[in-house]
Formats: sequence, structure tokens, C-alpha cells
Amino acid sequence: MILDLISEWRFPDADKLLPRALATAPRVASLIARCRRAGVPIIYGNDNYGRWRSDLRQVVRSSLAGGGDGARITTMIGPRDDDYFVLKPKHSAFFGTPLDLLLQHLSVRRLLLAGVASDQCVMATAMDARMRDYEVVVVGDCVASQTVARNRRALEHFQIALAIHTTRASGIRLPRRRRSR
Amino acid sequence: MILDLISEWRFPDADKLLPRALATAPRVASLIARCRRAGVPIIYGNDNYGRWRSDLRQVVRSSLAGGGDGARITTMIGPRDDDYFVLKPKHSAFFGTPLDLLLQHLSVRRLLLAGVASDQCVMATAMDARMRDYEVVVVGDCVASQTVARNRRALEHFQIALAIHTTRASGIRLPRRRRSR
Amino acid sequence: MILDLISEWRFPDADKLLPRALATAPRVASLIARCRRAGVPIIYGNDNYGRWRSDLRQVVRSSLAGGGDGARITTMIGPRDDDYFVLKPKHSAFFGTPLDLLLQHLSVRRLLLAGVASDQCVMATAMDARMRDYEVVVVGDCVASQTVARNRRALEHFQIALAIHTTRASGIRLPRRRRSR
Amino acid sequence: MILDLISEWRFPDADKLLPRALATAPRVASLIARCRRAGVPIIYGNDNYGRWRSDLRQVVRSSLAGGGDGARITTMIGPRDDDYFVLKPKHSAFFGTPLDLLLQHLSVRRLLLAGVASDQCVMATAMDARMRDYEVVVVGDCVASQTVARNRRALEHFQIALAIHTTRASGIRLPRRRRSR
Repeated sequence: MILDLISEWRFPDADKLLPRALATAPRVASLIARCRRAGVPIIYGNDNYGRWRSDLRQVVRSSLAGGGDGARITTMIGPRDDDYFVLKPKHSAFFGTPLDLLLQHLSVRRLLLAGVASDQCVMATAMDARMRDYEVVVVGDCVASQTVARNRRALEHFQIALAIHTTRASGIRLPRRRRSR
Repeated sequence: MILDLISEWRFPDADKLLPRALATAPRVASLIARCRRAGVPIIYGNDNYGRWRSDLRQVVRSSLAGGGDGARITTMIGPRDDDYFVLKPKHSAFFGTPLDLLLQHLSVRRLLLAGVASDQCVMATAMDARMRDYEVVVVGDCVASQTVARNRRALEHFQIALAIHTTRASGIRLPRRRRSR
Repeated sequence: MILDLISEWRFPDADKLLPRALATAPRVASLIARCRRAGVPIIYGNDNYGRWRSDLRQVVRSSLAGGGDGARITTMIGPRDDDYFVLKPKHSAFFGTPLDLLLQHLSVRRLLLAGVASDQCVMATAMDARMRDYEVVVVGDCVASQTVARNRRALEHFQIALAIHTTRASGIRLPRRRRSR
Repeated sequence: MILDLISEWRFPDADKLLPRALATAPRVASLIARCRRAGVPIIYGNDNYGRWRSDLRQVVRSSLAGGGDGARITTMIGPRDDDYFVLKPKHSAFFGTPLDLLLQHLSVRRLLLAGVASDQCVMATAMDARMRDYEVVVVGDCVASQTVARNRRALEHFQIALAIHTTRASGIRLPRRRRSR
């Protein structure tokens, strides 16, 4: 699951978050490619920023139209037609969305989380996933926050307080065979 | 709120439901027009029929492409760009969707329900709206079910068991002034 | 699951509902006894009537203290220490309660519903259970509403609109072996 | 709202958490007393630890029966009959509980959080409260975690990542007049 990386980057702190997000994008792109080869479903979770009429295609278009590093990220990691998405009204990708039902539909039990911000939306989503008994892995080098210190603190929090693994992308094992739905 | 009237009509019982839905469509269209003039937000609630990647635009396109009475309904009552929509995974438009948050965002307290089927998705949505303390009106001549008898029984149920008004469209009073958001 | 049969019967319509509830109580008691022998968990779902500080024990005590037919029902079908309960703030026993989590904890997939009113709380609970993919049986002769006509209409609605079985208690098959948790 | 301070302290890490919880208890007790005088409702949120049949009274009894520092805390800060409680199946006091409905019923908009662990249940509850648009204050010297370092990191996280105030109890202003419900 890819959180909040497809964006116009027009929100408070976007200037701080964007360069750190850009730095993770190649690793996220590579993880997405591995998941696609393995038939692991990709789900994009995106803030709707109070624009209740939008959908992911519009967000992709605006992001590309915005140019710069935001468009660069979207080009690297953007969704394909067979990917899934949820537009989230609040921080957690579970709150006010069909994510739980979608994961049940896909028979998903393990959730790999990538994206931004590690100590905000990623954390809220990880905690909600845990309360719903999903196995959660925060991909350690595919998440970022506004500062390096905040990201480090978030990863420590995942490990120590929540007992959530923060494996790096290279350490993630995916299932061998493709499944389709 | 317009439930399940934009569709390809490819599900069990669609042949029974479609003619009855078509019969309500002119009244629904007229109510939508009145709401738009009054600045009352229109929300389309639609089954995703297990097609988790779709959005309302795709549903509209497929419905029009399907031709026949289904396309006729969509032409009459289809959404505009400034309308809202929720794709619902189950019967109730509240379940696994951001509807409650959207209604809070729009400061909506009264929900007018139109669409099909009166004794299935409309009823599930009405009951969920009531549990969330919304005032609910099922627009009596803008809902339908597979048979006339089932629709009549549903309307009786709304009135007697749930104390929900089933006013006809002509009896609905809308606020005078336009609001925007 | 037993809905709203343990009560002080102090609400609008209680005078109409109580005699019909009393009439079902011996059959409910007998079904409960069969379930206990089979190791099927019993869950009591009860309105909290805005008394947020109460729990089932208090409801049982008040019901017995109230005397009359209400106390008679509670004596016949009252909970034991190893039964479960949820206090529901609204009609559906799923709304604002841990019921879904409790059913997952108990590995329950099939829900037998008994109690009152068949066209209000029982129906809201049945619809919510269906949306959460539980198999639902409304026990046909263990539910009641304010009038015989309303109860009959509710049972028709379950069968025709919701495709929910309304088997009589004598037709319910329970698993043979006891399980414990 | 008081989280997980009434307990038998029989869970992993209880030995680490208990002394730190005990250290906060006098300040929590004093805050509770001030809230009672001001008519601010007290809500106890407690893990049900998989014991689905228990209620707060039983938890209080077991805690007192267990003796030691746990009983000492319960004596200092235990509930009165006019307090509220929610038994929470998971970390957040909102998940699978009627808390949101209770807060609406009480017309509460601001939530003061005290208890343990600051980086687990307190944090999950704070994040859920924020997503539901409550104003949240984590009372800085009335929360604790397994270690002083973890508690400090949690408070930093509240302030920096979540923009949640972590005012000390002495700095909390309460409304002057008593309200009753």
C-alpha cells in the first residue's frame, strides 16, 4: 500500500516532505515492480484534501500537470489500471473508506506500507491495520517524514511501542506465484 | 441522494427492477433539477459490484454504452461534475464509505432518498442514516422495487416501523437560498 | 443472539410489544437451552436507553424488580454468567458495539436472531450482519413485533427482499459437539 | 478520559508499566477531583483482555483483590457510580466501542487523555479522536509508558507530528459551571 505519494504537494510542510519523498521514490518504484511481478495487489491511499469529487485519475493528472519533483514521483510510481485505490478523508486509510472490505475481498492478511508521512498517515494506517488483525510491515526505506529525525523516531516507535517490523525493501519476501482476481 | 439508478443493469432481477426504475426517472430528474436550483447537494450512491477499481465516471460510461432503458435513465438523471458520489461495497451507502464524513463536511442534517430498491439498498441506507441521527425522507414516488407489492410494503415499513416520512417529490420543501462549498 | 427481551418495558409501545414478546419467550427459552447444550454461545443484545452507565446485570435486576410479564420473561430466558452481552446505543446490535469483534473472537459465522421487534432492532441487526458476511437466520417463531401484521410483514421482508431464512426454532439444526472458549 | 489504569496488571510489561503508572496516579486523582467539581464527565477506558463477559465493576474488584500497587492506584482513582466507562477490545478506546456516540450524547468536544501507555493505547485513542474532529489534550504529567524515554518520545510525537497539546494537569483549564446529564 502506497500512501500519499501521488499528490500536487500543495499543503503545509509539502516543501519539507517532497524532497524526502522523492528520495524514497526509486525504492518504492522497485518494490512496486516486484509486487506486480509476484501478483501482489498494489493499493494507493490518497488524501482527498476536502475535494470530495475527485478520484485517483484526477489526482494523477493534477500531480503530473503540477510538474517538478511531484510529477517526477508520480511518473516513477504512478498507478496502472489494474491497481486499487482508496481516497481517504482523514489520516488513516481505514477511516471512512472501504479498505477493510477491499482487503477482505483480496484475501490480504499482510500489509506492506510505504509512503509519507511515516509519523502521520503511515502510522495511523499501521495502527488501524493492527487493530483489525492484519500483519503489518512498514517498509523501512520506503517511508519518510518532514525531517530525518522525525522519520527515525517514527521507525523506533513502530519497532518498540507497536512491535511492527520496519524491514527494508530488499529484505521483504514476496510470494512466488501470481494470483489474479 | 440517488441510489443505484446509474447502472449497467446486469445483475439478478435487473429485468424486473429496470422498468420500475425507468418509471420513477422523470420524477427523480425533476427533483434533482429542483435541488440543483436550491443549491442542495446531490450525492450518487452506487454499488461497485465487486469492481473495486471503478469510479462513477466509468459507471456512467458503461451505463450509456449499454444502451436501452438503463442508458435512458442515466441520460435523464446522470451526474454533473459538481455532484458527489460514493461507491458502496454493500447495501447501505454508509457501510465502508466516507458518506457520514461527506455529510458532516456538507453540514447536511436531512437526507432525501431516491432510487432502487426501496426494500434493499434504500432501506439499508435509511436505517443507517437514522442510527446516525440524520433526518430521513424516503421520497415516496422516487423509489421502486422489483414489484409494486414489494415497493408498497417497503413504504408501509418506513412509515409504520421506522417512523420515516415517505413524502412524494411534489410535497418536498427545499431551502430557498443557494449555498456553495 | 437474543435482542431486547430483557427489559423494564418502559418505552413507547411497550404495552403492545410485551404480550407478544411473552408469547415467544417459552420457545426462546427452549432454543437457548438447546444452544447451551450444544455449546453454541448465547449473546444478549440490549438497548441502553440512554443510560450509558448500565450493564446487563443492572438491566436484569431492574427487569426482575419491575415484576409482571417483563420479569416473567427475564426469569424464563435470563442470562447466565458464561453468556455474552452487548449494550447497543441504537437499533442495530452492531452499531457502536464490539459485536463484530466478539463474533470474530468466537469464530462465529452463523447468527440466529431472536427477540423484538422483528421489524426494528432485529431487522437492523440482520441487515448489518449480512453486510458483514455473516449467515443470518431469523428464528421465525422466536421474534415478535407490536402487532401480528407487522411481524408477518417483517418475516415476508426477510424472505423476499433480503433472502434471509426465517426457520422456526424446531427446524434449526445445531452443531453436535460442545466447544468452549 | 482515564485509560487502562484500573487493572490487575497481569500482562507482558506490567512490571515495567506499573511503577510509572503509580507515579502518575496522585496527579490523575487530583485532576479527576477537579473534573468532578467542574461537572466534567469522567470516562474510564479499559482493555477487556479477551474477557468479553466482564464489566468495569468486575475489573475494579479484581484490581482491588490483586492488592499491591495496582490496588493502590484503583483506590486512588477508581470510578464512582456516576462515571462512564467503555471496555475496549483493542488499543483505541474508539474501536469497537460506543465511545463516539457517548461523547456525542454528552456533547463533549474536548477530550483530556490520561493513563497508560502513552505510546500505545493513549496514542491510538488520541489519533482516533483527532480523526473524529475532537479537540484532544494529552495531559502531559498524567500519562506514562514502560520507560521514561518512551514516554518522552510519545510526548514529542504528540506535539511535533500530531500537533496535539501535552499540557500538564496544572495548566488545564476546566469550565466553571457544573452541568448534569
